[in-house]
Amino acid sequence: MTPGTVAERVKAGEPGAIARMLTAVERRTEGVNEALASLHAASGSAHVLGVTGPPGSGKSTLVAALTEHYRSHGKTVGIIAVDPSSVFSGGAILGDRIRMSALGGDRDVFIRSIATRGALGGLSRAALDAVTVLDAAGKDVVVLETVGVGQAEVDVISAAQTVAVVSVPGMGDDVQAIKAGLLEVADVHVVNKADREGAQKTVAELRDMLRLSKRKPGQWNVPIEQTVAATGQGVPELAERFAEHLSWLSRSGELDVRARRNTATRIRWLAEEFVLDRLKPGNPDFERAVDEVTARIGDPVSAAERLIRRM
Amino acid sequence: MTPGTVAERVKAGEPGAIARMLTAVERRTEGVNEALASLHAASGSAHVLGVTGPPGSGKSTLVAALTEHYRSHGKTVGIIAVDPSSVFSGGAILGDRIRMSALGGDRDVFIRSIATRGALGGLSRAALDAVTVLDAAGKDVVVLETVGVGQAEVDVISAAQTVAVVSVPGMGDDVQAIKAGLLEVADVHVVNKADREGAQKTVAELRDMLRLSKRKPGQWNVPIEQTVAATGQGVPELAERFAEHLSWLSRSGELDVRARRNTATRIRWLAEEFVLDRLKPGNPDFERAVDEVTARIGDPVSAAERLIRRM
Repeated sequence: MTPGTVAERVKAGEPGAIARMLTAVERRTEGVNEALASLHAASGSAHVLGVTGPPGSGKSTLVAALTEHYRSHGKTVGIIAVDPSSVFSGGAILGDRIRMSALGGDRDVFIRSIATRGALGGLSRAALDAVTVLDAAGKDVVVLETVGVGQAEVDVISAAQTVAVVSVPGMGDDVQAIKAGLLEVADVHVVNKADREGAQKTVAELRDMLRLSKRKPGQWNVPIEQTVAATGQGVPELAERFAEHLSWLSRSGELDVRARRNTATRIRWLAEEFVLDRLKPGNPDFERAVDEVTARIGDPVSAAERLIRRM
Repeated sequence: MTPGTVAERVKAGEPGAIARMLTAVERRTEGVNEALASLHAASGSAHVLGVTGPPGSGKSTLVAALTEHYRSHGKTVGIIAVDPSSVFSGGAILGDRIRMSALGGDRDVFIRSIATRGALGGLSRAALDAVTVLDAAGKDVVVLETVGVGQAEVDVISAAQTVAVVSVPGMGDDVQAIKAGLLEVADVHVVNKADREGAQKTVAELRDMLRLSKRKPGQWNVPIEQTVAATGQGVPELAERFAEHLSWLSRSGELDVRARRNTATRIRWLAEEFVLDRLKPGNPDFERAVDEVTARIGDPVSAAERLIRRM
């Protein structure tokens, strides 16, 4: 079956087709770009949530609890977990948690971990394409889960419409890390494991951080929600905040701003990928340029410019 | 002064001009590409050493000790320390160590830390350009020091002709990390702080790793050197191994293979950068493509292809 045929079945929401398409996306299978073009046209109706935070903050449990909440309200859910560190486990942890929970076997929940070896660039691009696939497949909510605070991960999570940054009590330094990397992108702060000692201190720290950040009038007022994901406490309220945020995005025109920014990022990443796909061993123009520059007949800058002009 | 004028002074080895050119390289100052093209033509005579290993392995002390060794043999030295984690300190640690040592004020030692915020891609490219600058400035030895085992750092360190991977006793798990990420690129293994307990165990572990790696006949026999960088112990022997490796590279033809691979990497990075420099807000073609794709009139893949063809 070609990716094109699979794409039609993805649009019909067939779990087998979604799985195949996501594999094609990760592997850059021949024909996948055309399939993605057709899926792109069919996407745009899901609420794309980003959930990020440091390891140990209970993100996976929270995503599972949110998923149960959405399912109990009749919504379909797709989950993309981006975890470069789970290369070895294959990102099995979240998958196992979902399978063992009440959600196991529910065909309206689709979950995929993306943990490609190699460049994080490829990983980021694959994650955004996977969101397109699940969106086009008709999922009402698509959750993009990432770990950490690296720049590439901030770029990925920025593709979400609503970004939740998860903290846990008792990680003073990590709040500092959030401050540096994720403050700008957080639409909702979640203090998970809020039954632990120190929860109020974490909430207070986040509140101070938010107060210090300069917010313009008419901007979204970033809430701090407390959850105990393991018991589901606070999860309905969190989902409520997400819905309010989506409604604000829409009212304020910010939804279009984010969609445009997201598109710009995707186009840039794809352009980068095209260039690198062509400039590799076996391309005679590239090989000749490498020979000339190595022999110092040419220089790398002019060679790169010439190669791009010839594309 | 234009980067072109500065380039001429760099070739004359003027420390002020080298410093200005390195700043221009980091900031992508207007005209820097042309200057780099001219410096590229003048480069190629330095022995480029890569020194890498986990934080705490004493790399900076080792680089300082190697530099003293080379200076005492009349060789000029340039050092590029790539440290994304030292964004806050500005990579001051190595610089301070050098300045406070016997090398302080020696105009034949040039040291620069590169710790650009933003994409690691830009950091990597700047590091390789900085090597070209120091090479063209006539430094006999150029040391490229990096931390960690990420893919981008492996790519950077691969630009060196001779790569030393530094371990210290008592970091069992880190030896595993080296195994995964750096075994392929190590030309020399250094067990630093070799006066510590456990040094022989670390040496034995590395020996086992090397034995298990499949080496083809005629290949370089990766040595394991023991040093105590703080006292200089083992440093002359290490420098000796580096010299032997350079001589092997030259004899075996591997020097050209590495130069070619290095050139290929640079051209690819530059091409990537050109593309990203053009595809940004303000470029009317790009803006139009972003509008169309956001409105789902077009798809990101076709838009990226079209934009590249138009360059």
